[in-house]
Amino acid sequence: MIEKTQRGRCVGGKSGLRRPSRKEGTKRSYSSKPHSQKTSRKASRKTYSKTYSKATAGKVRIIPIGGVEEIGRNMTVVEYGDDIVVIDAGLQFPEEETPGIDFIIPNTKYLEAKKDKIRGLIISHGHLDHVGAIPYLIDKLGNPTIYATKLTKAIIMKRQEEFPHSPKIDVQEITSESKVKMGKNLRAKFFDITHTIPDAIGITIETPLGNVVYPGDFKIEVDAKGNPENIEPYISLGKEKNLLLLMESTNVEMPGFSMSEKTVRENLERIFKATKGRIIVGTFSSQIERIIEMLKIAESLGRKVFIDGYSMKTNIEIAKELKLFVPRKDTLVSIDKIDDYPPEKIMAICTGAQGEKNASMMRIANKKHKYIKIHPNDTIVLSSSVIPGNEKSIQNLKDNLARQGARIIHNKVEDIHATGHAYSEELKMMMKMIKPKFFVPIHGHYFMLKTNADLAESIGIPKENIIAPMANGIIIETDGNKIQPTKETVPANYVMVDGLGVGDVQEVVLRDRQMLSQDGIFVIITVIDAQSGKVRNSPDIISRGFIYLRESQDILKQTRYLIKKTVEEATGKMHPVNIDYVKTLLRERIAKFLFQKTKRRPMVLPVLIEV
Amino acid sequence: MIEKTQRGRCVGGKSGLRRPSRKEGTKRSYSSKPHSQKTSRKASRKTYSKTYSKATAGKVRIIPIGGVEEIGRNMTVVEYGDDIVVIDAGLQFPEEETPGIDFIIPNTKYLEAKKDKIRGLIISHGHLDHVGAIPYLIDKLGNPTIYATKLTKAIIMKRQEEFPHSPKIDVQEITSESKVKMGKNLRAKFFDITHTIPDAIGITIETPLGNVVYPGDFKIEVDAKGNPENIEPYISLGKEKNLLLLMESTNVEMPGFSMSEKTVRENLERIFKATKGRIIVGTFSSQIERIIEMLKIAESLGRKVFIDGYSMKTNIEIAKELKLFVPRKDTLVSIDKIDDYPPEKIMAICTGAQGEKNASMMRIANKKHKYIKIHPNDTIVLSSSVIPGNEKSIQNLKDNLARQGARIIHNKVEDIHATGHAYSEELKMMMKMIKPKFFVPIHGHYFMLKTNADLAESIGIPKENIIAPMANGIIIETDGNKIQPTKETVPANYVMVDGLGVGDVQEVVLRDRQMLSQDGIFVIITVIDAQSGKVRNSPDIISRGFIYLRESQDILKQTRYLIKKTVEEATGKMHPVNIDYVKTLLRERIAKFLFQKTKRRPMVLPVLIEV
Repeated sequence: MIEKTQRGRCVGGKSGLRRPSRKEGTKRSYSSKPHSQKTSRKASRKTYSKTYSKATAGKVRIIPIGGVEEIGRNMTVVEYGDDIVVIDAGLQFPEEETPGIDFIIPNTKYLEAKKDKIRGLIISHGHLDHVGAIPYLIDKLGNPTIYATKLTKAIIMKRQEEFPHSPKIDVQEITSESKVKMGKNLRAKFFDITHTIPDAIGITIETPLGNVVYPGDFKIEVDAKGNPENIEPYISLGKEKNLLLLMESTNVEMPGFSMSEKTVRENLERIFKATKGRIIVGTFSSQIERIIEMLKIAESLGRKVFIDGYSMKTNIEIAKELKLFVPRKDTLVSIDKIDDYPPEKIMAICTGAQGEKNASMMRIANKKHKYIKIHPNDTIVLSSSVIPGNEKSIQNLKDNLARQGARIIHNKVEDIHATGHAYSEELKMMMKMIKPKFFVPIHGHYFMLKTNADLAESIGIPKENIIAPMANGIIIETDGNKIQPTKETVPANYVMVDGLGVGDVQEVVLRDRQMLSQDGIFVIITVIDAQSGKVRNSPDIISRGFIYLRESQDILKQTRYLIKKTVEEATGKMHPVNIDYVKTLLRERIAKFLFQKTKRRPMVLPVLIEV
Repeated sequence: MIEKTQRGRCVGGKSGLRRPSRKEGTKRSYSSKPHSQKTSRKASRKTYSKTYSKATAGKVRIIPIGGVEEIGRNMTVVEYGDDIVVIDAGLQFPEEETPGIDFIIPNTKYLEAKKDKIRGLIISHGHLDHVGAIPYLIDKLGNPTIYATKLTKAIIMKRQEEFPHSPKIDVQEITSESKVKMGKNLRAKFFDITHTIPDAIGITIETPLGNVVYPGDFKIEVDAKGNPENIEPYISLGKEKNLLLLMESTNVEMPGFSMSEKTVRENLERIFKATKGRIIVGTFSSQIERIIEMLKIAESLGRKVFIDGYSMKTNIEIAKELKLFVPRKDTLVSIDKIDDYPPEKIMAICTGAQGEKNASMMRIANKKHKYIKIHPNDTIVLSSSVIPGNEKSIQNLKDNLARQGARIIHNKVEDIHATGHAYSEELKMMMKMIKPKFFVPIHGHYFMLKTNADLAESIGIPKENIIAPMANGIIIETDGNKIQPTKETVPANYVMVDGLGVGDVQEVVLRDRQMLSQDGIFVIITVIDAQSGKVRNSPDIISRGFIYLRESQDILKQTRYLIKKTVEEATGKMHPVNIDYVKTLLRERIAKFLFQKTKRRPMVLPVLIEV
């Protein structure tokens, strides 16, 4: 899961919101089920091969196009013969190295060349690192059918509205009961999974060589007795012939089990109950399950709920429409009415817990919110983690809220946030349940993938059956007996979205932005008399981000003198004037001079105009 | 403590390195001691007043000049009558909002105007957030005597060598036994304190109204039985008349006690013992105590130690010279000899555990290190925390080391790093031991100061005796009975060091840098015929960090056309040409046009040249 923040990644949480069906297996609706759940692995392999006898010569290819050298822009390709299934189409938020960029998305060059073979794009859940790139690339993929659960579909459709020029997309709704034939050789089925958003789904691609299992983002909740919950689908799936498990690595470095979302719910309820004044909660808008839980607590305490922030309102609107929860008629009140209610009847739920500029919480902190002004009796609950990279903005947020006298409760002092990504023990549990032949860790940086591979080895998967760690664009091939990366790779570098441009920002543009941000720019405009080579008038100097010009008259004067001297010394012996030569000379001399004077290195750009 | 990283703060560690003297009290060497350690607080106050009867009309003023709205650039002023004592002179690393800046230092305007009253600058320990600003500001303060312990002095002197144009400084060595008269009214004495660097010292400024106590950065270690260690100096000091406690807030948000450095030492020893190949440790060069401990373990295991990284080598050199430890003759070996030894005899200790560019560890990871190439049998131990803001570079570091097959042990999987800053229970313990009348939290962001103030209230210090939280530059005044901020404040804004410039970088320069880093710059150079107002030739366009020009010929062509059209429409009706008007018009039109075409907002700078 990625939150819609300026950058960084997020580790979300999950609550016990109901999913409609957790029925085991797939027997009833899928008549061609290849092997009995009770046969041994060896036996089942035979059955399987028979069923798909036409295609046994083929190989399964797995191509991680994004998400295996980073957190975000997840996209995985499963290919067999002439059939391609694409799983997820996420975006990644920009990094320090990509200033000014809006998003980074997967590189789909390989798929574009084979778009007639794409049988569908399956989306595991509605978070931006899984759905976010759809508007930018669906057209390039030949606008294939998108398969998604109800909520995920609604989120995709809603987002599509922001891209009016994007083509009309075809989204087919699926459930954990669905089976979808994907071309001649592949078939998709699904299983319920626990994450921080309802309707998250695991994906099983049946191939002639066995299942490719992709749980996507998940965690395993435990009940009061410490027993894992809702794991029946995994156990059931584990009885099938699972060729390969693609498993996320986000929290693989964390030992043990992650905190339960139930604990979070209980703590929030306790805090809310004990609070007398207004409650203002900041959380991720993507934490739809927790937000729904908070709504329920608010109802039980007789508080009205005021939702604020565009993405939060959108998500709640969708959840309501889909009846993921049914609030009492008068629970949700428009934020502009907040002052009509007494403090003890108010719970505001806001975006911006990461200190994102212009988000609701930040506007409250900066006293720029139209309807919420902080009172000393307010209790602010930050039910979120700190996404790496946002420390400074969150500190600002807390500081500015505290300055106004509010009481602040955050996740360092109370357990009011839990991740949505499995810790190492949960990952191991999943591996043991799925029992795959081959293991491929995905979704994480190199070191995380490596750690996940080690984890797989530790539970007994043979080293030679583990592919890890990978680079984006690697082609992993298996004939069912062996697995290895091929020598070829597919293009997988960053595709950057910057304003209207998708993929048009080059390295050089980013390097320039970084350089400009360090010591600014120094433009010299010199008019030269073409005849005499003399400098006409005083050279113009434009400088931004370098030194404060008004207080640097002395340097400017010396620079102008040096420009004139450099140009005229060069042009004096030169007919005609070699403009490029003079420019280079000028750039070097002035850069050196400015460095001597200031120990700064602005980008020096000389412009010579002959008249 | 601040590490020498690009930005961010650090929570360091501490080991049990011996400090020479922990003798209690000050009775023997300080004959004018104002009140007996055994009298009650009330009684002692009377005695005290009598002793200083000449000055009872006076007030103690505390001015935090830096370090109370941030982590870093610590500087606190204690003032009574005509006497000023300055405590610490730290620097702060730049933030996202200050691109291209080297350091941020305290604003000393107030002190410059009163420099004849400065009786000394006392430095609590040798970390950069306490000593780092000395070379930039000592001259401005009138070059007062600096008081520092042996190691701190050596660090200050070493650093001074990097500033050859800085004046010769006068550093007086102190110990916990020293008493220093600071003008007519003030006197300084000292107490040993536990931090992550040897020779850290707490400061007590005796004033006519009682002691101002400044422990500086500290933590409280516990022995095997869980009993606090080395707290005798605090207990002893607690028997005096302590007017005011200035206490750090770095880790106030952390519940309980911090991890013991002993645990870290034990874990390191266990890991080192179990390792067969080379050991390559990355840690903070400021963790001098831990580095010394690692040296001792290496000796016990028969490993040679190869120190790499400028600051690390410097610190070890200083520690050796001061005999803070005495290595065996052949323990330390120059890094260029590393290949002369078998793997099991090697322990390298390197800088760059935060992934700092060009630091030793990063060069190893990027295969650019001259002497260390990673082998798959190497064990890399990252004995450090993640300084907020460095997540991405540390991830890169780990990824690149793992790619080369090294085994990596970091502080998420093993307890191999401990902070040097007290957690909340340690802070409370210190408050209870010192028993101050007034409490002033320092060193932290607003929210941390607030949390520290709440902590003080929770242990029984009356609310009206707590000043918090503060802003830099506030003047806190007390007559011994009451404490409050005055209405005046002193200048305390950021002073930025950028190359040779100290304090010359203005807001506007930083704003420009930030803007340039987002969408770059677009410079238009247009030559106009002064007579006709017509544009001569095609306008020149220089753009950096905006779009990739080579692939944007179409936009450039349209822009040139629009420039010509805009200029000529404006100048056509205008005699003489109003250059400023045309420039403004051009800037607006072109910016709008570029935004429409790209949804990016480069800085548009039109240059009009009349010929």
